[in-house]
Amino acid sequence: MPRFKLILEYDGSGLVGWQRQANGLSVQEILEIAAERFCGRKLIVHGAGRTDAGVHALAQAAHIDLPKEWPTDVIRNALNQHVKPHAVSIITVEPVADHFDARRSARGRAYRYRILNRRAPAAVERGRVWHVGVPLDADAMQEGAKLLLGKHDFTSFRDSECQANSPVKTLDMLAVTRQGDEVQIEARARSFLHHQVRNMVGTLKLVGAGKWRVHRVGEALEARDRRAGGPTAPPEGLYLVEVIYPE
Amino acid sequence: MPRFKLILEYDGSGLVGWQRQANGLSVQEILEIAAERFCGRKLIVHGAGRTDAGVHALAQAAHIDLPKEWPTDVIRNALNQHVKPHAVSIITVEPVADHFDARRSARGRAYRYRILNRRAPAAVERGRVWHVGVPLDADAMQEGAKLLLGKHDFTSFRDSECQANSPVKTLDMLAVTRQGDEVQIEARARSFLHHQVRNMVGTLKLVGAGKWRVHRVGEALEARDRRAGGPTAPPEGLYLVEVIYPE
Repeated sequence: MPRFKLILEYDGSGLVGWQRQANGLSVQEILEIAAERFCGRKLIVHGAGRTDAGVHALAQAAHIDLPKEWPTDVIRNALNQHVKPHAVSIITVEPVADHFDARRSARGRAYRYRILNRRAPAAVERGRVWHVGVPLDADAMQEGAKLLLGKHDFTSFRDSECQANSPVKTLDMLAVTRQGDEVQIEARARSFLHHQVRNMVGTLKLVGAGKWRVHRVGEALEARDRRAGGPTAPPEGLYLVEVIYPE
Repeated sequence: MPRFKLILEYDGSGLVGWQRQANGLSVQEILEIAAERFCGRKLIVHGAGRTDAGVHALAQAAHIDLPKEWPTDVIRNALNQHVKPHAVSIITVEPVADHFDARRSARGRAYRYRILNRRAPAAVERGRVWHVGVPLDADAMQEGAKLLLGKHDFTSFRDSECQANSPVKTLDMLAVTRQGDEVQIEARARSFLHHQVRNMVGTLKLVGAGKWRVHRVGEALEARDRRAGGPTAPPEGLYLVEVIYPE
């Protein structure tokens, strides 16, 4: 069966995350139902990685094997019809070689975390940002972020339910910038531990709010103990923005 | 009673617009209920202008007379508590002179219209953009927009139910730009006719899609006949972004 790569956008609000689960509707299930309606048979959609309940994606990647070599426009339009009424959109469909695997072939993941930093709660962006009412010092957060760059044991920022074999990851980018009322954190690595981005953001927020001095971020990292890290930032501010593949 | 100016953000989805109406919930009603809960008496919130059902605001302006000189932070926080669970947020509260009137004192209004221009429907931005699946030529739209600048009789872009005394308005800005998949139209004038921005956008979309040559925009304007203008763009792409007051 010919294999296709999908690039997907979704609003994670109200969903249990990427992966199929018994306790609610997932992005994977929405896509597999759409594929079955289109092709008339059960198919599996393989994602590049899981996103948690409530986390959004601007460009999740996935692959699927289809029974026929339909034109990619036909596949995209049919899947977009069949995912309705859910807030999932198939941006592109591309034929790929049989050895392409959305998860194993990926060389990197990029996430963005959006904090709305003002006294007034979010209205237009509600459910798509983390509202933090106390003023955040984005420069101090950026100083703290620098201490996490590179190859480290990230146990202090790893969820207790993380199933990765090793807590050692290489963080290629962690950049904090302010644009008006919004503080954005961009993170990039070959792969991340479970909740790693949200745990790093929750920690940097303590620095930004003046509750932690910058150097404490480095101490938390060295402790290799989840209790030394900051709290987990909520899912609604997190976006999977890119999955990177070799040329 | 001391008068206060409010700056308000709201998601217009599911609301009947700014103004109180019998057929559904309005932003004005949400705010007046919040003010009554806060002050224990019925109060009127006077907006700078009406927004239609489904139209959003990043910075609507309004004024309200309150029974006491509370600190502005207290007013803002209390109103934000009492508007819950609606997607309305009071950004700032500022004391103003008794002669300040949110509508009459305003010297200009700025709107932004957001078009998501790609084949795939909106997911994360659903309900906050107009999805146009055919490719739009933003440069041609900008050429068309230029023909509408200045003082004109805008009858061709005026809703049949518009209550303004005169169809003559001065359009100070109408700028079309593309940023990736998004085409934005920024419009600025002292005031607008009913549906004027959405009717201009619906017309420029025809130019962008190649259905109208640019010069036809000028012909539509000169016709002074609503039937000569293009269709009304949907409300979900429109944002009131600023109400301008003298220093």
